[in-house]
Amino acid sequence: MEKKDIANMHQTAQIILEKAHELFVEKGYERSSMREIAERVGISKAALYHHFKNKEEILFTLCVQAGEIINEDMRQAILKSETQYSNVRDQLVNILYDYTIGYLKHKNFNKILFFEIESLPPEKREIIINYERSNVAQFKNYLRRIMEQGKIKKTNITVLTFCFFATVQWLYFWYKKDGQLSIREIIEYIVDYFLYGIIGDEK
Amino acid sequence: MEKKDIANMHQTAQIILEKAHELFVEKGYERSSMREIAERVGISKAALYHHFKNKEEILFTLCVQAGEIINEDMRQAILKSETQYSNVRDQLVNILYDYTIGYLKHKNFNKILFFEIESLPPEKREIIINYERSNVAQFKNYLRRIMEQGKIKKTNITVLTFCFFATVQWLYFWYKKDGQLSIREIIEYIVDYFLYGIIGDEK
Repeated sequence: MEKKDIANMHQTAQIILEKAHELFVEKGYERSSMREIAERVGISKAALYHHFKNKEEILFTLCVQAGEIINEDMRQAILKSETQYSNVRDQLVNILYDYTIGYLKHKNFNKILFFEIESLPPEKREIIINYERSNVAQFKNYLRRIMEQGKIKKTNITVLTFCFFATVQWLYFWYKKDGQLSIREIIEYIVDYFLYGIIGDEK
Repeated sequence: MEKKDIANMHQTAQIILEKAHELFVEKGYERSSMREIAERVGISKAALYHHFKNKEEILFTLCVQAGEIINEDMRQAILKSETQYSNVRDQLVNILYDYTIGYLKHKNFNKILFFEIESLPPEKREIIINYERSNVAQFKNYLRRIMEQGKIKKTNITVLTFCFFATVQWLYFWYKKDGQLSIREIIEYIVDYFLYGIIGDEK
């Protein structure tokens, strides 16, 4: 096979992934068929099977791509914030903001990662869940660093990580573009609650 | 129809709901059939249709029951905490603890409320979402009361409500019974983060 052919095959595979992804988001994975995917791409079923041995392989490949993008977004967000800002509030706001924006941009990707993962066999599901774990671990390591530097109080770092992720990920379900607050404003509120607390002065 | 018949009918309807619910949790709503529900209950398909006109009516009835239970749990939790405790930390810990325990106890109910609601037609979905809204509103009203009493700082009450719900509901996905911390300990951490913040003394 010549180089040109490999490049073409990859391009077709990528188009298959995109079209299958669209279909899964519209109809759900279970209700989508290889025939429909082939139709959307405009190729024969035989040609489709040349690229992916079954529907499960397409779903798995999509989940791996989503996992890699999410991890890379988090890595970039932490690196950029720690380089550009010295105080913890600015760092946290910017990490969570960059991460959330990436997350919302790939909203449909995440929809698959969240809801269709159950359709994968256990060993493949484990691989995808490990992307999620490694993503959480990156943020947890950042929190551990600032805790060890004495910038935040000593606490259970697992619970703290979980709290930040919970609030930010919930934005995915709750955020309305036509609402009164921007994503950045909401994240500033969240970070300020966690950093400074909401107890009144009179306690 | 005599009173006794009505009582019997209600009892059968309740058994149908329980068995259908089991099946939906195991196989998912879409993949479950009226035939399978009838088999589990041990009645004929005709008898099943006597109680519910279709599978959608069963799902809708289950969602309504789940919505009512969750709302009542929250109402009780707030009432009990405001009656028994005077300081905000104790109130919040106990409201969120009672609510979470109820939530985890009805875990399968909530699984349906969360994941199968998409299978309902828009007007029925709206009714179920209103249960969710009224549940959030109860907690929001509690937060508004303590804010107006000056017990917590003035803030955007919608964002604050959302943050509490996000962390507590995330427990549903993340909490492991065999972990090191109990539900109550995790909720104490969460409440303390929100109330007192995590910023180090040196700021």
